[in-house]
Amino acid sequence: MTAPTDDPLPSWRRGAAKTALLDFLLAARTVPVAERVAMFDNDGTLWCEKPQYLQLLFMLDQLQRAVAADPAIAARPEFRALIEDDHAAQAELGLERIALALIQLTVGLGPREFDDRVRAFFAAAVDPARGVPFRHLRYQPMLELIDALRAESFSVFIVTGGGTEFVRAISQDFYGVPPEGVVGTLVNYDFSRDAQGGPRLARSAERLGTANEGAAKVVNIQRELGRRPIFAAGNSAGDREMLEYALASGGPSLALLVDHDDADREYAYEPAALTVAFAGSFTALAHESGWTVASMRQDWEQVFVDS
Amino acid sequence: MTAPTDDPLPSWRRGAAKTALLDFLLAARTVPVAERVAMFDNDGTLWCEKPQYLQLLFMLDQLQRAVAADPAIAARPEFRALIEDDHAAQAELGLERIALALIQLTVGLGPREFDDRVRAFFAAAVDPARGVPFRHLRYQPMLELIDALRAESFSVFIVTGGGTEFVRAISQDFYGVPPEGVVGTLVNYDFSRDAQGGPRLARSAERLGTANEGAAKVVNIQRELGRRPIFAAGNSAGDREMLEYALASGGPSLALLVDHDDADREYAYEPAALTVAFAGSFTALAHESGWTVASMRQDWEQVFVDS
Repeated sequence: MTAPTDDPLPSWRRGAAKTALLDFLLAARTVPVAERVAMFDNDGTLWCEKPQYLQLLFMLDQLQRAVAADPAIAARPEFRALIEDDHAAQAELGLERIALALIQLTVGLGPREFDDRVRAFFAAAVDPARGVPFRHLRYQPMLELIDALRAESFSVFIVTGGGTEFVRAISQDFYGVPPEGVVGTLVNYDFSRDAQGGPRLARSAERLGTANEGAAKVVNIQRELGRRPIFAAGNSAGDREMLEYALASGGPSLALLVDHDDADREYAYEPAALTVAFAGSFTALAHESGWTVASMRQDWEQVFVDS
Repeated sequence: MTAPTDDPLPSWRRGAAKTALLDFLLAARTVPVAERVAMFDNDGTLWCEKPQYLQLLFMLDQLQRAVAADPAIAARPEFRALIEDDHAAQAELGLERIALALIQLTVGLGPREFDDRVRAFFAAAVDPARGVPFRHLRYQPMLELIDALRAESFSVFIVTGGGTEFVRAISQDFYGVPPEGVVGTLVNYDFSRDAQGGPRLARSAERLGTANEGAAKVVNIQRELGRRPIFAAGNSAGDREMLEYALASGGPSLALLVDHDDADREYAYEPAALTVAFAGSFTALAHESGWTVASMRQDWEQVFVDS
């Protein structure tokens, strides 16, 4: 396709996935620039989501700080299940309910205060499994793909089931995507005035709408971005509708599924979405649906970034 | 300040407003690029909102087409008041209720279909007062200001009380702002599947939340963009909180009020917001609040763009 010296995807091994991606990059040159739109899921697509979602680790860190300041809050069932690492209780409560309880910990923070907390977390924390800072958990082949798409004048967005502002705090640094390019699960803000009458935004206790997964991803893409992807990448049932939406866009298009089948270098697991149930093999659905499947084990020469 | 030859604001006459803008552009060089964020209201700030909001003219055009196809709908009170140009009935019903009725006319359209309708309207329609295409109603001094801000590495957004997708349809062409850079009043979309199982988005009959005016502008800026403006421009009470929010951002900042005081070249009127009441002189509030006031009559050498 391209000579090795100007291969835009050097960490992708020669094979069907790489060929499909390179073909798509070429085909997209016929598409008006305004329609060259690429959207990426984040957890399990751009960075590793095992052994635990990074956002849950962040919220656990916030929980530990909150309990240190006020031990009484540890009695709340959702918090106790987390603190005691009680997986049975967690499963019974459900991650959705736990997530809503954790939102309580940041109620009242302003946008910048929340941002600062996330950045402080990323600056200090390390992955419990590998002992490396979280920025090392980004997938090198996917970063190359983002760069290759940008080289073809694509606008690149992140459409995540995670908290919008959690991801926005690091999206520019990690992926070159500015805050407005991130669509995720939204916590509401309340407008108020301080004692001097100055305007103030504070995080509220309510989430806006449902989690940004499944069909909600497509609706929120339209609401917040007003663009239609012709390329989308994901790894779970929470990305299904977004992948279908990209593939049905009418011109050159590609839907990419990242298949976690590499127990040696990363993890091997059937993907699960937080709030979207899916029975059966998601990878099988991908093949049936005409999506391009990226096997970590077979297609990726390198998994994680070097730095 | 700058030599006339490299004046970034040639349509601005020498005076307090121009000096404040040029000072701000210089001061912003000390601000990290990620925080160089400028937000503009649209109606009455970037383009003329008299004799009528362009979006209302668009909806009237849609209404005429709908009535041609089905005369019965003309009996609806909100529509009758518009068709008969009955200002008393319109005032009694309120523009808010009329706007919600007009949303019905585009229920079921997909994003691209709606986009196409807006673009077709802009391609054909002319301003009822001046007989020129609507793109001529953009203010030359404000376009220069957008360019000058971009030259200083600002990210430029539109935060409008108008319909998000109405403005998105022309924002790139008119202002160089891509769809995702527009925050406005949102109509909801419903996700469904067509007969072949393909994903489909269709405009719904409901608006999402309140109109994007007043405090809602600040909340929606955070939700949809996650950026805080250090520069904001507006012309009515619907922009007040956004202007305050920019001015209170902590570093170099500027809030600009466009004052419509030029009956000869444009219009002279006290600004009114659709859904935000304000008693008294908004221009007086601007002076009290430390906003920079741009008098069309005194500060603008040229009002409208040439082409």
